[in-house]
Amino acid sequence: MTDARLAGIAPEVFAAAARRVMARCDELARVTADDGAITRVYLSPEHARVNRLAAEWMREVGMTTRQDPAGNQLGRLAAADPDAPALMLGSHLDTVIDAGRFDGIIGVLMAIEVVRVLRVPGAVDGSWRSPFPFAIEVAAFSDEEGTRFGKALLGSSAVAGAWDDDWWALTDSDGITLREAYREFGLDPGRIGEAARTGDQLVGYLEAHIEQGPELDRRGEALAVVSSIASARRFQLTVEGEARHAGGTPYDMRRDALLGASEAALAVERICAAEHHIIGTVGRLEAFPGAVNVVPGEARFSLDLRGEFDEARDRVWQSLSRELDEIMGRRGLRWSAREMHSAPALFCDPLLQDVVRAGIGSTLGSRPAEPITLFSPAGHDGMTIGSVAPVGMLSLRNPDGISHHPDEAVSVADVAVGLRAFAEAVAHLGAEPAR
Amino acid sequence: MTDARLAGIAPEVFAAAARRVMARCDELARVTADDGAITRVYLSPEHARVNRLAAEWMREVGMTTRQDPAGNQLGRLAAADPDAPALMLGSHLDTVIDAGRFDGIIGVLMAIEVVRVLRVPGAVDGSWRSPFPFAIEVAAFSDEEGTRFGKALLGSSAVAGAWDDDWWALTDSDGITLREAYREFGLDPGRIGEAARTGDQLVGYLEAHIEQGPELDRRGEALAVVSSIASARRFQLTVEGEARHAGGTPYDMRRDALLGASEAALAVERICAAEHHIIGTVGRLEAFPGAVNVVPGEARFSLDLRGEFDEARDRVWQSLSRELDEIMGRRGLRWSAREMHSAPALFCDPLLQDVVRAGIGSTLGSRPAEPITLFSPAGHDGMTIGSVAPVGMLSLRNPDGISHHPDEAVSVADVAVGLRAFAEAVAHLGAEPAR
Repeated sequence: MTDARLAGIAPEVFAAAARRVMARCDELARVTADDGAITRVYLSPEHARVNRLAAEWMREVGMTTRQDPAGNQLGRLAAADPDAPALMLGSHLDTVIDAGRFDGIIGVLMAIEVVRVLRVPGAVDGSWRSPFPFAIEVAAFSDEEGTRFGKALLGSSAVAGAWDDDWWALTDSDGITLREAYREFGLDPGRIGEAARTGDQLVGYLEAHIEQGPELDRRGEALAVVSSIASARRFQLTVEGEARHAGGTPYDMRRDALLGASEAALAVERICAAEHHIIGTVGRLEAFPGAVNVVPGEARFSLDLRGEFDEARDRVWQSLSRELDEIMGRRGLRWSAREMHSAPALFCDPLLQDVVRAGIGSTLGSRPAEPITLFSPAGHDGMTIGSVAPVGMLSLRNPDGISHHPDEAVSVADVAVGLRAFAEAVAHLGAEPAR
Repeated sequence: MTDARLAGIAPEVFAAAARRVMARCDELARVTADDGAITRVYLSPEHARVNRLAAEWMREVGMTTRQDPAGNQLGRLAAADPDAPALMLGSHLDTVIDAGRFDGIIGVLMAIEVVRVLRVPGAVDGSWRSPFPFAIEVAAFSDEEGTRFGKALLGSSAVAGAWDDDWWALTDSDGITLREAYREFGLDPGRIGEAARTGDQLVGYLEAHIEQGPELDRRGEALAVVSSIASARRFQLTVEGEARHAGGTPYDMRRDALLGASEAALAVERICAAEHHIIGTVGRLEAFPGAVNVVPGEARFSLDLRGEFDEARDRVWQSLSRELDEIMGRRGLRWSAREMHSAPALFCDPLLQDVVRAGIGSTLGSRPAEPITLFSPAGHDGMTIGSVAPVGMLSLRNPDGISHHPDEAVSVADVAVGLRAFAEAVAHLGAEPAR
């Protein structure tokens, strides 16, 4: 099953590449806005710095590089035919607040190592090219997490041509609009359309990512094929009651917005836990005015709802809405919800699932007999890229499933086998008849 | 029952004084750090400005004024004997965030009007003095709410000689220490001890305050005697779990600190509601890291616990602690509490209760047969002043009991009868044999 091109490559080559990936994850982790923690948001000085580092590493393996009008860092290894479409490999370099060092980042760095392993000498001395009928691009997306502006997947949305002009008015916690942040970063909002790629330019998109869940670790396996990326909806909810003096207001006269929100958070857990493959999270909650001695007159909280299938996710939201009507009605409160994000489930392309499966199979041999297939409850750049190109994903074991946390981990051994499987998958796709 | 001194004063005099009090409440409401809301915190530019206004109004009625080393604004109307001790009248001028315009403020402004009504010409032409064997002081305390540094009653604690040097290290939300804020305001932290008054300097402390609760409004009465000020404890609670990726972490692997805190907030309500005259409030709650797509690894919330009696209050805290052990144990969370404030119930002085009762009785006549007596679940400056002087309080009807809110209200008619009752109470005390 092993591709002829890769058969002769010693395991030590992948082990060295894996060590380089890990060292670079450490190097990028030092580019942060927070001392002692990793926080790197869209259009920040840290974003500019990691783009420069990624570009340097892309050029080192023979790629030409550019930063696109959405701040995504791109590298390209041309095919023999300079007009050939590209297979895009990649992930994102932005992070949540106080993040781990692998989520997203490792997918970009592994893609660069895959290029290093697969490239062949080009026509000009010292140049390199893709050995396949397609170019290979590496995309380091600029915003997947949505940490700064509350809207996720901004970087890949621009590439997918799915930019919404309403987003320019989004603001960060300092009140800076997305439009202002673009200008401050040195980008021209008027050129955002030029970041868009079309279906005829891309043969597919492949991404390696840590699992961000415990399934592979529980099953004792290193790698999985991803079947689909979760369907997701995000809401900002507001509960309104009445702010009153904490001492003088008896319980029968209170309309305490925080207690309504607390019941709501518990209802999310109860309703989601009763459904299969649905998970809801309240990650933010704040009470206003937020004084020790004032009954909260308002509470705001976020809801992140994910599921393998859109129907189940929407059914849960309807149950929850009915439950919120009951809770808030009983407490004399009003509630409202604003939907911040909605994405249908993204089903990975069958051919790209097959090449990833073949890559894992040829790397891990007969164990397991059939590579594990998982659905990803976490969102990924493929959710937006899926509208212009077929998407495939490779998942790496994530010990204890900890992600979005400084303890996020992946082993160098798993990265080494992951790199081989990733390269094999690309080679398998290269051997397919043109699509 | 009416004091001879006040018998001849026409109702119109009190009505005019009440209108002046209301106009000055409006004037002070415009001194705020927040456009469109009233927020005035300790050692702010707004604090300096309202002190200047209050001093001007104190001097207008013949008082000598000074700002003490804790930033309290004081006025004094001497007695015939310049060394006579003083009856202190007053309240505070600081506010919560987005406050009403009467809490505290009206007690200071009514005290100034009481001086205007009771003063008699002094020995020097154009001077005024107290007609009683005691001087009259008006105290405008600088910090009762504790809005800025989280510690309440800082102003009156300095006057009571109960300053704790640990407080210098308290910080506001910008990280400014109390010590730094003193210096920035122009106060010398080294002189704080000079703000302290002793028992032999004060014959008592009388305060008029809106009820901050609905009892008088429910009973259709304007005024009440306060029997005691609630016993209070304040805690800052922390719940620790584990921050994890919102998509990838199944419920059975989560240790969600926010859900633990939500259950805790609901437990506070459930446990307190089952006790008589105990009220607990969670006014602040925050989740960390506070991202839409991260399971909260930490949550912090405040607890304000009040009761008529210390024993019941402490019993509720013990029940709640056991409940928190159960909730957090079940969810794999840890919890801890830091006590920020503790004050035993303050029982008003029997003689001062009697003079306030007599003042109300002579003002309202036979309706009600006996003036209403209420305990105050809200804290007041008298809680600290009580350690150096006997304390009495007069409560004014607060429509619908709304306080710590822009809708906080009191009627001009109630302020007029309140002013007469307040003046009568002082005159009744003046007629008592020396204590």
